[in-house]
Amino acid sequence: MTEETQKSQENSIFIGGKPFMNYVTGVVMQFSNGAEEVTVKARGKFISKGVDVAEVARRKFLEDKNVSVKNVSIASEEFENKEGKLVNVSVIEIILKKA
Amino acid sequence: MTEETQKSQENSIFIGGKPFMNYVTGVVMQFSNGAEEVTVKARGKFISKGVDVAEVARRKFLEDKNVSVKNVSIASEEFENKEGKLVNVSVIEIILKKA
Repeated sequence: MTEETQKSQENSIFIGGKPFMNYVTGVVMQFSNGAEEVTVKARGKFISKGVDVAEVARRKFLEDKNVSVKNVSIASEEFENKEGKLVNVSVIEIILKKA
Repeated sequence: MTEETQKSQENSIFIGGKPFMNYVTGVVMQFSNGAEEVTVKARGKFISKGVDVAEVARRKFLEDKNVSVKNVSIASEEFENKEGKLVNVSVIEIILKKA
């Protein structure tokens, strides 16, 4: 793993079932702590929430820091469900970057 | 409106509450009808569904056509809700392109 990869993994927020504002605060805090980039990652039904988190953080809390969307990517991941069957889930990664 | 813009609007699929496969079929049919690019658009809670539609269409139905994700963008749109209040909704646009 390169230093670059490690750095980007450190500055990731993975979206799950916790309250919406927890994730927004997480993104904002990473930038406040000096991160140049923060990646919001979400899978399946949490993708909509991930986009909302990135947009709310950017527009309402990071306007003065000039944070913009650097890149958005989507993909599919295969995983084994409870019944042992291989299923696909969509994933999104949104990279926010300080200008 | 430029010719380019018109063309891209013609080849758009807007995700809503209809059954999932309706939208997948819509994307596949546009490529079958000769489109070079198809844009999947979704707002708010339909964003996860939009990503799934793009991924399933690309992986399961368009593999032989070599369709890939050209670009993904996110943004916020302001609209007036039923109570007349201005609220924001996140939007996503996924551009699929024939290789």
